[in-house]
Amino acid sequence: MMVIMHEGATAEEVARVVARVEEVGAAAHVSSGDRVTVIGVIGDREELTGLPIEAMPGVERVVAILKPYKLVSREFHAADTVIDIRGAKIGGGHFAIIAGPCSVETADQVMESARAVKAAGGHMLRGGAFKPRTSPYAFQGLGEEGLKMLAAARDETGLAIVTELMDPRDLDVVCQYADVVQIGARNMQNFLLLAEVGRLDKPVLLKRGLSATVEEWLMAAEYVVKGGNREVILCERGIRTFETATRNTLDLGAVAAAKLACHLPVVVDPSHATGRRDLVLPLSLAGVAAGADGIIVETHPYPEHALCDGPQSIPTATFGEYADRVLELARWAGKDVA
Amino acid sequence: MMVIMHEGATAEEVARVVARVEEVGAAAHVSSGDRVTVIGVIGDREELTGLPIEAMPGVERVVAILKPYKLVSREFHAADTVIDIRGAKIGGGHFAIIAGPCSVETADQVMESARAVKAAGGHMLRGGAFKPRTSPYAFQGLGEEGLKMLAAARDETGLAIVTELMDPRDLDVVCQYADVVQIGARNMQNFLLLAEVGRLDKPVLLKRGLSATVEEWLMAAEYVVKGGNREVILCERGIRTFETATRNTLDLGAVAAAKLACHLPVVVDPSHATGRRDLVLPLSLAGVAAGADGIIVETHPYPEHALCDGPQSIPTATFGEYADRVLELARWAGKDVA
Amino acid sequence: MMVIMHEGATAEEVARVVARVEEVGAAAHVSSGDRVTVIGVIGDREELTGLPIEAMPGVERVVAILKPYKLVSREFHAADTVIDIRGAKIGGGHFAIIAGPCSVETADQVMESARAVKAAGGHMLRGGAFKPRTSPYAFQGLGEEGLKMLAAARDETGLAIVTELMDPRDLDVVCQYADVVQIGARNMQNFLLLAEVGRLDKPVLLKRGLSATVEEWLMAAEYVVKGGNREVILCERGIRTFETATRNTLDLGAVAAAKLACHLPVVVDPSHATGRRDLVLPLSLAGVAAGADGIIVETHPYPEHALCDGPQSIPTATFGEYADRVLELARWAGKDVA
Amino acid sequence: MMVIMHEGATAEEVARVVARVEEVGAAAHVSSGDRVTVIGVIGDREELTGLPIEAMPGVERVVAILKPYKLVSREFHAADTVIDIRGAKIGGGHFAIIAGPCSVETADQVMESARAVKAAGGHMLRGGAFKPRTSPYAFQGLGEEGLKMLAAARDETGLAIVTELMDPRDLDVVCQYADVVQIGARNMQNFLLLAEVGRLDKPVLLKRGLSATVEEWLMAAEYVVKGGNREVILCERGIRTFETATRNTLDLGAVAAAKLACHLPVVVDPSHATGRRDLVLPLSLAGVAAGADGIIVETHPYPEHALCDGPQSIPTATFGEYADRVLELARWAGKDVA
Repeated sequence: MMVIMHEGATAEEVARVVARVEEVGAAAHVSSGDRVTVIGVIGDREELTGLPIEAMPGVERVVAILKPYKLVSREFHAADTVIDIRGAKIGGGHFAIIAGPCSVETADQVMESARAVKAAGGHMLRGGAFKPRTSPYAFQGLGEEGLKMLAAARDETGLAIVTELMDPRDLDVVCQYADVVQIGARNMQNFLLLAEVGRLDKPVLLKRGLSATVEEWLMAAEYVVKGGNREVILCERGIRTFETATRNTLDLGAVAAAKLACHLPVVVDPSHATGRRDLVLPLSLAGVAAGADGIIVETHPYPEHALCDGPQSIPTATFGEYADRVLELARWAGKDVA
Repeated sequence: MMVIMHEGATAEEVARVVARVEEVGAAAHVSSGDRVTVIGVIGDREELTGLPIEAMPGVERVVAILKPYKLVSREFHAADTVIDIRGAKIGGGHFAIIAGPCSVETADQVMESARAVKAAGGHMLRGGAFKPRTSPYAFQGLGEEGLKMLAAARDETGLAIVTELMDPRDLDVVCQYADVVQIGARNMQNFLLLAEVGRLDKPVLLKRGLSATVEEWLMAAEYVVKGGNREVILCERGIRTFETATRNTLDLGAVAAAKLACHLPVVVDPSHATGRRDLVLPLSLAGVAAGADGIIVETHPYPEHALCDGPQSIPTATFGEYADRVLELARWAGKDVA
Repeated sequence: MMVIMHEGATAEEVARVVARVEEVGAAAHVSSGDRVTVIGVIGDREELTGLPIEAMPGVERVVAILKPYKLVSREFHAADTVIDIRGAKIGGGHFAIIAGPCSVETADQVMESARAVKAAGGHMLRGGAFKPRTSPYAFQGLGEEGLKMLAAARDETGLAIVTELMDPRDLDVVCQYADVVQIGARNMQNFLLLAEVGRLDKPVLLKRGLSATVEEWLMAAEYVVKGGNREVILCERGIRTFETATRNTLDLGAVAAAKLACHLPVVVDPSHATGRRDLVLPLSLAGVAAGADGIIVETHPYPEHALCDGPQSIPTATFGEYADRVLELARWAGKDVA
Repeated sequence: MMVIMHEGATAEEVARVVARVEEVGAAAHVSSGDRVTVIGVIGDREELTGLPIEAMPGVERVVAILKPYKLVSREFHAADTVIDIRGAKIGGGHFAIIAGPCSVETADQVMESARAVKAAGGHMLRGGAFKPRTSPYAFQGLGEEGLKMLAAARDETGLAIVTELMDPRDLDVVCQYADVVQIGARNMQNFLLLAEVGRLDKPVLLKRGLSATVEEWLMAAEYVVKGGNREVILCERGIRTFETATRNTLDLGAVAAAKLACHLPVVVDPSHATGRRDLVLPLSLAGVAAGADGIIVETHPYPEHALCDGPQSIPTATFGEYADRVLELARWAGKDVA
């Protein structure tokens, strides 16, 4: 890291920074310009993280040189991570469509959705049994009953299940049914949950937080990988901005930047990003063109009776047309969509 | 709520919306303008929440009329809620300073901080024993050992303890020591944690999420109050914006707006809002002037050796001057600071 | 529009709102719910714009029903506007690549860029002669000399010129050379400049402001069209958010939403959106897939000697490969790229 | 500045950066760490601004060491700038209230407002004769007629006039009447307007742009001061964020940060920041407490008939109470409010 001193910092202040850095075993190189002194610090990432140099007198700011994440970076592991989920591969040129209802409501609804996804060439089934809801008055999910409905749909269609874990106390029950454990956007920095899924032998789909930077998103993935679980799928689902034409702002620059910086697969969720069914297809295609390894999208047999997020769900009746277009573009982009 | 139809929506589409609304027992009033039809809907808040009218053909958008929260609103309960914590009152004209280190590091550090807070006329002691950290390589807190250090400082100074709960599995141990249970910004929409603290017989300090609207913040408080716990203290700690001169952007408009809309006490955290010690005093004063019921602020006996957030901590050596100024302004604003 | 009264608004307050509305010739329909009264107002858009109903006692808020723009909307004019610029068409299925250096620096630089754009199948030449620069110490552009260099490149290659107008006093000189007059992001709400270009008989490329909503962007276009100039090309170039991995956040949801709401062509500027050359191709492709009618992109013969925005420019040496990929996807999307 | 190379950058890439830097007369110091090479560059600010080092192969990013502004900085001029406007002083311990209607509508409206401001102890009169309006259908201001009404009010009350300049072609007419020339938020980066007012011998009130960083705001002031006009008053009027409870988000951290970084007076505009009359007083007080040198606020004799921004205007009838409270706090803060 580099420590940039205030104009007018004293020699004593510089000396105290050097001494503090050396205390933790790092080396300091002082370079005094015409107006400002800069101190280069070389040492162990772990030791330097959190060293409160900015609290010291005379210090203007500290600039990190090394990236704060390591295990998820391309520098650590150059090749794309490929994850195999019941035969559906994602990452490293393999593309997947993950689709299904926002929340599991009835056995029929799940089964109809799963059949539509399978028929359309989709690869995995999504559906929430434990739902994070902004309002305490809204439907909170069916819990284990919902997971059983998903499992029944998997039994018939063979589609792997992606479902959300919200509470560490539900870990066992969720893992009993899920093929991929989803960490929701509001839990991206729920560090204890990250630690829990870091111990799993099961892929994790990690949604980007509403106001998380790409760096924080990769740090959250680093938590999981550091725990021992290398199978993390990143998911961009829109960030919060001033714009109100869409529910969130889909950030495809983040998708492309994340693909360059890390080796994990990245998928795009156009449903939550926009909140508008009429924007789901164009933004799905945009996601594929930006380099995403998959799309996670909502479909529902009768959206106007959905208990959650009906306005953004594609009716199962037209899901085939939607998926055709997405898969055709994925093939154009050189992906394997089998 | 009101349903605004697209220009060109058909009579049949209008009729389907009316029918859907009446299905859940609500009443619909259709009003057709020159170009657009609007449907007023009157019914039960709970029934209407989540009714996916926007998913229906011909619907442009849905506008809520009633606020989505109820129990925390001034309409439900006009008078300020006053919370008494070991004799320190907050809300309804009572003002409190809550101060201490970001994280509990050593028994001495906590004790020195507590003595400085007490001597300066502060009302409660803050300190984290379980720490949410963006990096898995950063110090994660001392756990129960840290809670014991806080309790020792309370024993000597009489200051009540405010400390964070991150994991529902730690509820018992945290409650064994804490006088006020803090829910951190990253957990503001951790709904299961809100449900847990909603069952407590202990005040909750609820930090606003980094990208939470005032409405979502009040909805989070509604979760707690709906669970039965009416003692919630709201805390504004800065939101995430494009600005980089400060770590976050302290939103005092939100403080004033929250005070008008709800009856709960609201405090301001200038330390996390700015990340810069040189801005803590001006923004503390600004918070008091905006109407805050208290300030929660970081102090540390030797910030440059802090394991967390040193750059924004006020040294205990100068904490008295800081507190004098804040308390003087609170008195000017008509608050009881005893 | 609809006026939502506070809970507890008096009958007299309601009556005053009704009277105020009727003063400007509009009709008011009062609808009293259990807790809240709503007043529907039907009248002329121009009369109601700016009527300060929210300033009246008892009023909670006002909700607009009609969109604030008219001439640019699909409701007013359903079919795509197609603009023909020296034979290059854009909009209504016609796709164009507009490319060139950020700023005009030398005759050679412009000519080399133009040749590369032409050879790659690009349709127009971009280049700034008047430059808006954040720093007064940065290069401010060559002025008319630069425009002459662009004209020379047009003479040789036949490419139409897109260049920025910053100052109404430069209108004549810019129009003497430009085929398309660009209004920069920082001038999107420079209403006098909008009025000026609204009087032109020349297409206008209108960049979205850094923090402009889609609605404000369309309102800016409405200014131009209301002035009599119907040939407006909208340009999304990234909005300002908290994210720092990219210079701005490219908002392709806005592109797709604008295409649905208005009939004007929309292009995407991946260079300014990202500020990173390595992200230009993926985000160009994403823009095309989202439905953009064109791409405006920076290319430079020797980016590391550029006076402006070198880091995001594609070297002319590789521009052909870039354009091939973009045009191939445009064709896949059903566009005419001739 | 410092150039941080990619991990894996070659010795040749490093050498090219060094050569490029030396080309413009700067000195380069190479420092190779275990994994990353950093190049410190010392040279002239003007030469280095815009040098496209980030465009060079092997470069990860460039970190500026020196601030990009100079003349407005505390390092250049440590003491507060005090500006005297017809006897009203602002800055350096002098506090001023600038008040009046959003837009000038009638002679009576202006005169009544001016009398109320004067009677309340206010220092200057604000009022717009040229209005930037988002909608082309909204009232655009009275032009010179409006300026004459302001002048008549000045003649009677002695209050100096603060009014907006939007168009460089209006410079003479505006300067004929204005005592302080206001540059609106949407024109903060209208660099030609900044250049024009930089040549004036009249104070400039420079509003912060809706999405401008503190650094960009100070850079805009640097444009004016570099032109020769040292009398710039900065004005914080709220930034654009995701929050919708207030029209904008008042950023008092920016006020305090700007006061530390530069020597110019800073005022706060709580009216545009909130758009809500009920929040104007608390946020005015907060602004004073944060260290502002003045408040610019809207008052109107009959807000519900205002042509612009009625909902946020304080009625002149209660303006005295408002001003009393603000001035009392300014005195508490040690300001001279004479």
